[in-house]
Amino acid sequence: MQQIAIGIDLGGTQVRAALVDEGGTILSRAEERTEALAGPERVLGQIRGLVDGLLSGKELRSVVGIGVSAPGPIDTVAGVATNTPTLAGFVNYPLRAELQKRFRYPVRLENDGIAAAIGEWQFGAGKGLENLVYVTVSTGIGGGAVVDNRVVRGRKGMAAHIGHMSVMPNGAPCPCGNRGCFEAYGSGTAFTARARERALQCAETTLGKNGADVHSRDVFTAGRLGDTLANDLIDEEAEILGRGFTSLIHIFSPEIVVMGGGLSHEFERLQQGIQTYISHWAMPAFRDVQVVRAALGQNSGLIGAAALAFLSVRSTRARTVAAG
Amino acid sequence: MQQIAIGIDLGGTQVRAALVDEGGTILSRAEERTEALAGPERVLGQIRGLVDGLLSGKELRSVVGIGVSAPGPIDTVAGVATNTPTLAGFVNYPLRAELQKRFRYPVRLENDGIAAAIGEWQFGAGKGLENLVYVTVSTGIGGGAVVDNRVVRGRKGMAAHIGHMSVMPNGAPCPCGNRGCFEAYGSGTAFTARARERALQCAETTLGKNGADVHSRDVFTAGRLGDTLANDLIDEEAEILGRGFTSLIHIFSPEIVVMGGGLSHEFERLQQGIQTYISHWAMPAFRDVQVVRAALGQNSGLIGAAALAFLSVRSTRARTVAAG
Repeated sequence: MQQIAIGIDLGGTQVRAALVDEGGTILSRAEERTEALAGPERVLGQIRGLVDGLLSGKELRSVVGIGVSAPGPIDTVAGVATNTPTLAGFVNYPLRAELQKRFRYPVRLENDGIAAAIGEWQFGAGKGLENLVYVTVSTGIGGGAVVDNRVVRGRKGMAAHIGHMSVMPNGAPCPCGNRGCFEAYGSGTAFTARARERALQCAETTLGKNGADVHSRDVFTAGRLGDTLANDLIDEEAEILGRGFTSLIHIFSPEIVVMGGGLSHEFERLQQGIQTYISHWAMPAFRDVQVVRAALGQNSGLIGAAALAFLSVRSTRARTVAAG
Repeated sequence: MQQIAIGIDLGGTQVRAALVDEGGTILSRAEERTEALAGPERVLGQIRGLVDGLLSGKELRSVVGIGVSAPGPIDTVAGVATNTPTLAGFVNYPLRAELQKRFRYPVRLENDGIAAAIGEWQFGAGKGLENLVYVTVSTGIGGGAVVDNRVVRGRKGMAAHIGHMSVMPNGAPCPCGNRGCFEAYGSGTAFTARARERALQCAETTLGKNGADVHSRDVFTAGRLGDTLANDLIDEEAEILGRGFTSLIHIFSPEIVVMGGGLSHEFERLQQGIQTYISHWAMPAFRDVQVVRAALGQNSGLIGAAALAFLSVRSTRARTVAAG
């Protein structure tokens, strides 16, 4: 019988669920707006509702488990959401235990950046590799790493909060409360803020007309039409990402860096600037590391969550074989 | 019979060898100045000479292997020194194979920061922990990480070149060729350079008298005697280290950060500033991570190299048991 896993991608905006097969293909999916202010009971009700809908009429014996990608930092060892900024009431909330009460399948929990890295590693741009770093560049910056063919989790499973490495002493304010984080300069939010600010100061740009309404896609569109300010902003963003990725390359020594998130829609435009930075400024032994676009697009985390359930089954099997 | 391992710490200045027992105790040691300009043949001759001296008259059957800590970045998977800046002629040099020709025991090779992390993990400040980051703050900054009870090696075994994460865009020149690296601000060399520069500009400091001869220990001595400039310089160094360590805490999620290297001699003076930075500016879930001094002092790498040989034997045994 074909085995399937349930993947849940719980975010502050959307909660998504999918049935995924062992090849990483989404068989069916459902999503809705997260009732982020309604408290954990309601949010878990949403997850239960989505899963029930997907499983309705399915042969239940083929489900190996449920993997859940949750917004971090979350203690995935204890299974507790200590204090999730984007979800009201998730304070010292025993998320895994509460999920487990609602499902008969084993529940696995992972910080969202790590879940997405697992998706790209098992089924996406990093399939078959032993070392990769995944970076999502979107509203914020997050990520995950696979090193020596293993997921890097660390204490409480909270590793790879790479958006919060410092790239500028006492720099721009970051949503985390610190200043000068990679996220505060490299995220889509930071990119858009720079574009708005500079557009207002620049007479020659076509972006000026939009004023505070400039969005990141407008900048890329204007750039393609030859707008100088827009292209400068994009080149600057590529340099910021290139510098951050170079740090990550020195830290993790990956074979590739996988870029996902909203800004990766414009990966073709950003790629050369990022790669040029790495090939000029990384230490010589690291200069050949390639940056690639996430192959699973917006589904890295959703498919990665499902992959967790498969990995869990496989490692149990391996332990059983070793002990047998 | 008591088993022993041979540890070699090959550096650009000193080459050191030790016999180490299974408890991490150095039974005997020898060292000499590295003939860094004489080429690999001569340097390997030095290693051979040191080991022969140590083993002279010993029962050879009890030696489990030789671990070698080498200055990176070195490809420890292929066993090749691609281009070692501090050792002339180590260009695409098959270091492990050449070492293996000279010894009857299995040879293991590791980048120096990783070897030191292994030493502290197996026998030092991180004994029994599953997650730690080791940082050496000396002429440069290097390190290694243990995550999920495993050494983080990455592609070519070159992970944890943490001295070369960027902390300032287009900042101070770094020996690696880039600008703005952690090493260019946080190393003992950078600390001393700042002290010399500011001392010359400051009439009130006792450091001024020494001018260009100020060394880092002079700054700590002056600080203890109440010199304001010296104490400002030390507090600034602690903040730089605290900021860098906070990045590493977000990236690896360790239980502790272990600080070694020359500046760790003054760990007591630096600790509070570093810890204060972390407890204020790390994301809340990471604020309790403690910074501790390397327990093995200048021997983290030497003992770590020997530990490599023991780990190698143990993993072979574990595989044999699992397959048996």
